[in-house]
Amino acid sequence: MLRQATTTLFFETRGRGLLEITRPVAEWVAATGIADGVATLFIRHTSASLLIQENADPEVRADLDRFFARLVADGDPLFRHRDEGPDDMPAHVRSALGAVQLSIPVAAARLALGTWQGVFLWEHRLRPHRRELALHLVGE
Amino acid sequence: MLRQATTTLFFETRGRGLLEITRPVAEWVAATGIADGVATLFIRHTSASLLIQENADPEVRADLDRFFARLVADGDPLFRHRDEGPDDMPAHVRSALGAVQLSIPVAAARLALGTWQGVFLWEHRLRPHRRELALHLVGE
Amino acid sequence: MLRQATTTLFFETRGRGLLEITRPVAEWVAATGIADGVATLFIRHTSASLLIQENADPEVRADLDRFFARLVADGDPLFRHRDEGPDDMPAHVRSALGAVQLSIPVAAARLALGTWQGVFLWEHRLRPHRRELALHLVGE
Repeated sequence: MLRQATTTLFFETRGRGLLEITRPVAEWVAATGIADGVATLFIRHTSASLLIQENADPEVRADLDRFFARLVADGDPLFRHRDEGPDDMPAHVRSALGAVQLSIPVAAARLALGTWQGVFLWEHRLRPHRRELALHLVGE
Repeated sequence: MLRQATTTLFFETRGRGLLEITRPVAEWVAATGIADGVATLFIRHTSASLLIQENADPEVRADLDRFFARLVADGDPLFRHRDEGPDDMPAHVRSALGAVQLSIPVAAARLALGTWQGVFLWEHRLRPHRRELALHLVGE
Repeated sequence: MLRQATTTLFFETRGRGLLEITRPVAEWVAATGIADGVATLFIRHTSASLLIQENADPEVRADLDRFFARLVADGDPLFRHRDEGPDDMPAHVRSALGAVQLSIPVAAARLALGTWQGVFLWEHRLRPHRRELALHLVGE
């Protein structure tokens, strides 16, 4: 019979960039005892996002960050909202271009990720932040 | 025991820009009687999208719109599909850069949004449109 | 009473561009016998993504591809990760701008898509690839 589980996970980012969170998410999924279903990750912020990307070559993460830093430039004079500095509004834009939520099927008590996929928390602010994720799992 | 609820919500946009829909979505969630679970919002259009963003400072929404208007320029000669005018194809591109769907955990009969998060319908066409959302909630 | 169904679908892409997959996804949904619920599609790759877009005018798809080819240029000297050629890192960036996952409500045994919406697998690599989707459906 179907049932559900929920939790909240906290992560300390080291400033702008990708922080891999595959392991803590997978460990929580395994601990629920739900073998098959679908897990939903939701980030409770508007200046950080969630991303599934290659976890093999660190250059992929560096290139991603370089691309987004060029696409959404810190201090762009277009932006009027700069209460918290030149990286404030770019963080919101980067978040809008990314995902606040990911739903990942679970099979045999594991996230059904592809061989090269990792789950990342993408910090868009320059400085470290404490970030909160709401997790939900439904299955049996 | 787990159960589900579904509905359809309609919104009248005022043309391009962000329309906050947090309250009507939250009211429907509360009315279902499901206290804990996950809500899925799906927009049934290809020229509007869904976004979770800061709902405190209106300048954030204005900056977002300025950024996307520059990134995906109306009337860009690159575009051949212009059946409905210069904002037709840019609306499709903006929709592809955004999200047609959001899944949000529900706890204690409330959307588990962060302090500064609001749920928005993002109209990408210049003129007002009637937009339709399919909602699904599973939980108990 | 709620139940769930899962499957894996494989698709052979023809190189960069949009491949419509609405029909095979809808056929699987109908075959599960679950009439109402929510379907989650997850692509197990980091250089292809999922998209819901207009399925009426093929020019929309061509314009989308032209826009993204200009936004994320193959061979951009910004990128250092180029193990698999000049379209390698751009494929990762395009995937990060898109969606690896879509959740679509199901009503009366059909995907609750809008009139003009189709579900597409977006191949970001220039050459054809075999792509794998994990599908999950919960409902009754």
